[in-house]
Amino acid sequence: MLADSAAGTNPNLHFAETVVDGLVNAGLRAVCLAPGSRSTPLALAVDAHPGIETFIHLDERSASFFALGMAQATDRPVALLSTSGTAAVEFHAAAVEAMMAGIPLLLLTADRPPELRDSGANQTIDQVKMYGDHVLWSVDAALPEGGQPDVAIRNLRTLAARAYAIADGLRRGPVHVNFPFRKPLEPPAPYRPDFGRSEGHEGLGEARHSSISRGILAPTEEQIEELAALVSVHERGLIVCGPWPGRAARGLVESVAELARRTGYPIFADPLSGLRYGQHTACAPVVASFENLTQHPAPFDRPEVVIRFGAVPTSKPLNDYLDRVAPTHQILVRSSGVWADDSHRVRRFFQVDEDAFCRALAGRVDRPISDWGKAVVAAGRRVSCRQIQFLQQHRFDACVIPEILESLPAGANLFAGNSLPIRHVDQFGGPMRKQVHVFGNRGASGIDGVVSSALGVAAADRSSPLLLLIGDVSFYHDLNGLLAISRFGLDNVTIVVLNNDGGGLFRRLPVADGLGQFERLFLTPHGLDFAPAAKMYGLDYVLAASGDRDSFARDLGAALQRSGPAIIELRTDGDRDERLRRELAATIQDSKENFS
Amino acid sequence: MLADSAAGTNPNLHFAETVVDGLVNAGLRAVCLAPGSRSTPLALAVDAHPGIETFIHLDERSASFFALGMAQATDRPVALLSTSGTAAVEFHAAAVEAMMAGIPLLLLTADRPPELRDSGANQTIDQVKMYGDHVLWSVDAALPEGGQPDVAIRNLRTLAARAYAIADGLRRGPVHVNFPFRKPLEPPAPYRPDFGRSEGHEGLGEARHSSISRGILAPTEEQIEELAALVSVHERGLIVCGPWPGRAARGLVESVAELARRTGYPIFADPLSGLRYGQHTACAPVVASFENLTQHPAPFDRPEVVIRFGAVPTSKPLNDYLDRVAPTHQILVRSSGVWADDSHRVRRFFQVDEDAFCRALAGRVDRPISDWGKAVVAAGRRVSCRQIQFLQQHRFDACVIPEILESLPAGANLFAGNSLPIRHVDQFGGPMRKQVHVFGNRGASGIDGVVSSALGVAAADRSSPLLLLIGDVSFYHDLNGLLAISRFGLDNVTIVVLNNDGGGLFRRLPVADGLGQFERLFLTPHGLDFAPAAKMYGLDYVLAASGDRDSFARDLGAALQRSGPAIIELRTDGDRDERLRRELAATIQDSKENFS
Repeated sequence: MLADSAAGTNPNLHFAETVVDGLVNAGLRAVCLAPGSRSTPLALAVDAHPGIETFIHLDERSASFFALGMAQATDRPVALLSTSGTAAVEFHAAAVEAMMAGIPLLLLTADRPPELRDSGANQTIDQVKMYGDHVLWSVDAALPEGGQPDVAIRNLRTLAARAYAIADGLRRGPVHVNFPFRKPLEPPAPYRPDFGRSEGHEGLGEARHSSISRGILAPTEEQIEELAALVSVHERGLIVCGPWPGRAARGLVESVAELARRTGYPIFADPLSGLRYGQHTACAPVVASFENLTQHPAPFDRPEVVIRFGAVPTSKPLNDYLDRVAPTHQILVRSSGVWADDSHRVRRFFQVDEDAFCRALAGRVDRPISDWGKAVVAAGRRVSCRQIQFLQQHRFDACVIPEILESLPAGANLFAGNSLPIRHVDQFGGPMRKQVHVFGNRGASGIDGVVSSALGVAAADRSSPLLLLIGDVSFYHDLNGLLAISRFGLDNVTIVVLNNDGGGLFRRLPVADGLGQFERLFLTPHGLDFAPAAKMYGLDYVLAASGDRDSFARDLGAALQRSGPAIIELRTDGDRDERLRRELAATIQDSKENFS
Repeated sequence: MLADSAAGTNPNLHFAETVVDGLVNAGLRAVCLAPGSRSTPLALAVDAHPGIETFIHLDERSASFFALGMAQATDRPVALLSTSGTAAVEFHAAAVEAMMAGIPLLLLTADRPPELRDSGANQTIDQVKMYGDHVLWSVDAALPEGGQPDVAIRNLRTLAARAYAIADGLRRGPVHVNFPFRKPLEPPAPYRPDFGRSEGHEGLGEARHSSISRGILAPTEEQIEELAALVSVHERGLIVCGPWPGRAARGLVESVAELARRTGYPIFADPLSGLRYGQHTACAPVVASFENLTQHPAPFDRPEVVIRFGAVPTSKPLNDYLDRVAPTHQILVRSSGVWADDSHRVRRFFQVDEDAFCRALAGRVDRPISDWGKAVVAAGRRVSCRQIQFLQQHRFDACVIPEILESLPAGANLFAGNSLPIRHVDQFGGPMRKQVHVFGNRGASGIDGVVSSALGVAAADRSSPLLLLIGDVSFYHDLNGLLAISRFGLDNVTIVVLNNDGGGLFRRLPVADGLGQFERLFLTPHGLDFAPAAKMYGLDYVLAASGDRDSFARDLGAALQRSGPAIIELRTDGDRDERLRRELAATIQDSKENFS
């Protein structure tokens, strides 16, 4: 086969190089791929392109969540590449998470040529629109053929630019491009890529790529006017910041904090909002203990105005509170235009750039925080204090949250798994001036792919430590993902496994109360020992003594200071953990009457 | 919430019980599920139904492939149940495999009610038709509500019957039913299911279920007439049996063997066809060494007639041969009506029942095997002999194939992984009278889910040993699946891992020749030691001495005789393995001129 294709005459290679170069020109810098045959032209081009860092995985599911983590941390599209068949299907869960969370991903799948499709050919499945409605755009690219007209090459270049721009659009998310290739897939050895530069097609040279740029969705005069009028007559207002995809820009964080200062509205900051940790908390009223603060009855009167940013908050009590008290003016500000209110109480949706919105509105109001606002902030502080006291008096799983937040250096990345860890961070990780970037997969809130997503963050930001806090079921679910640590030399990783032997979160559901089938069908204890997994992937492993506060803090400190990846497993008693959490809630509830 | 729902008044439970009872009435016997909240009504009903065996997994991907293996071994639909979100997406790869291989699966996914869909609600994704064109049917069931009319209940019953019948239809495959539920999801404790018997809805009692039965797609007189005439004038004919979904029925095997005897056409039997191993090989001309036999030049004249059953064969050389020699009359017989010829050389496609077809045609011809047929069979035997001699003279990975086939007791199940193991079984596992049931995932031929699929076979047939032969990358890909062994007490499992540290099959591709990027992009060595994985899942583990023939056979014999699951890892040198395989091919090629 190779004999038939002289250098540069295999159209597959020229095609692949054109696409890859187009993507790099658009801004692509990282590709995660798993080995395969049909994807050879694209894999070679990706690997050869000097503008791309390549991450080679063995499990496509892990690869896809790793890419998701990288995209979160780098705030730009990351591409995935797979061969044909179920390998491409393995990307689907991460694509769904990307779609729901607004994370830009490019799903590049190699496919068989038309004559092999639906014919019984090996490893050939229907890949056209294979991710259904879970991608922003899905394209079945043309089959590379010899002697293609210039327009076909130009189409490839614009396709690359458009795919990247759509993934990185106002509404960010996954874009799928399916690439059929006919054999031969290989170049003559050695492979000498030239990325289309010598091909002689029209439009080569500096100007050969198309670029797509976008303006800012600036709020109109009328929109701000309306809002400013509303805010000025209502002192009782909240700014609710839900999860923000990836790492919120510093500018946005400062704009929201400034809006809070100017309106006197306290900020209810989700741990994934970017608003909970950092210097801005020193002078903006950031509240974070709403898990216990907002449970009925709340120790302050209902707000009249709520301005919401980001996705629906992680905290169910907070969401229930907003639904229950039903503020008259609930306003959602989202540049993506994606609805985020499952109580259907939002009355005004402003599809505008969040940063521009905050700056414009902050420029139109300026008043001190009201007594009501002060009461809300004070109540938040009291709840927070009670929690800290309680955590000091009792030793249970939630104690690790303040210990982790204290141990992490400024600028560290904290990835909180679903479903218990992120809720624990939300409840027990109060605001602080030290900046910690919190990540999670809260688009679809799956327990799958969490290890890989966290490692993608670690790979994207090697100069900062990454701490992954994860439950045992989720850790088991993506054990394969640990392979990335040694493959990519991720020395900046510390994993804390909260092992309560099963699905601890189910203990919070009504089904936990008295149902005989609870343990068997929901809790699903597995009895797994994770020490061998650590050994298999060459990681330091410590089983922390669960009853001993100092032991965990010491192990954690040692792991963070030592260079090299480590796993700290903390075995806890889920029943006891949940009992104490409820006891804390009752204690706070009892004392609330003295708050106001 | 529980206070609001008295016994029997939670419509979710009644709804779930009706569906589950309907499925059981249709024939459902096994359900694989993973824990979740939204799926509570269905999980409780499934668990409570006396007609269902429940298998609870933690990783939905593993669960889905486990169900696939069970469906293969039991030859009937197996159901999957997941909660909402990416948990349901994790079924997608197994659904694709089921669709391509024709394995009946029921994908039951719990979903959120309409008001939470596309609203930003937690763990809520678009599940309507979420598997796209990779299922035979996809239904979004009605939301259970109080005071439903009888027709809604009857609809549920017919839905259950239809979903099962479509999955188990002429074209078998996956069927998806999405079930929205609104809270409360839980019954009053304790849960007392009655499966709709006491509800008082119309049509209760014995006659409440609908049944769907199907006739046999019998060949017409004219079809058989035409074929008989064709066969009678052509002595040079082959019967090519490709992969058959699950375990081919004994009746079908005997009918095909009888057709071969009556027509004098040798059977080229894929290892997954059900035709390669068993008593019938004693008196029917079964050939299996086509990997080397059919490579150019074949030591016999081209056939004039080829009658094909099943999917496209695993052997690429065989497919290339049939494409190259282009028999004048290529006939495909498939009751499913699904095309299976990627060379597009089939000229007559008979969508008829294979068994009935064979019996009808065999009743119309009767002649001894021709000289040509004898030459084909003899050539097959010679190639097989050369292979055995070669395997005795050289120690490389393929040697395990005859050793495994000799060690397995009659009636054993052998699951061969993708991509090297199944090809090795195909090439080196010649026909024998001892019946061994060979399974594989050759619908989409992915390397994902292989461990779980094999364990599903083991769970479905606990009275027979299950040997899984698997490569290291595929083993790594589904390590999670090993948890099923201890969870379900699968003592009948022996796993042989052929560890050549990476994607060994890529060595067969042109890209392996001289390309500098080969090892990095394709071979992807990982250096993993699987001993800790065995330890983690509580399995006996032996690292077989790779150079020592006796050692592996001894370890294998011990593992098969001892009750209890075991892993035998064989580390091999993939370069050397492939070099010797090529040397064998060259040796046989050289000697072929003396064959005819």
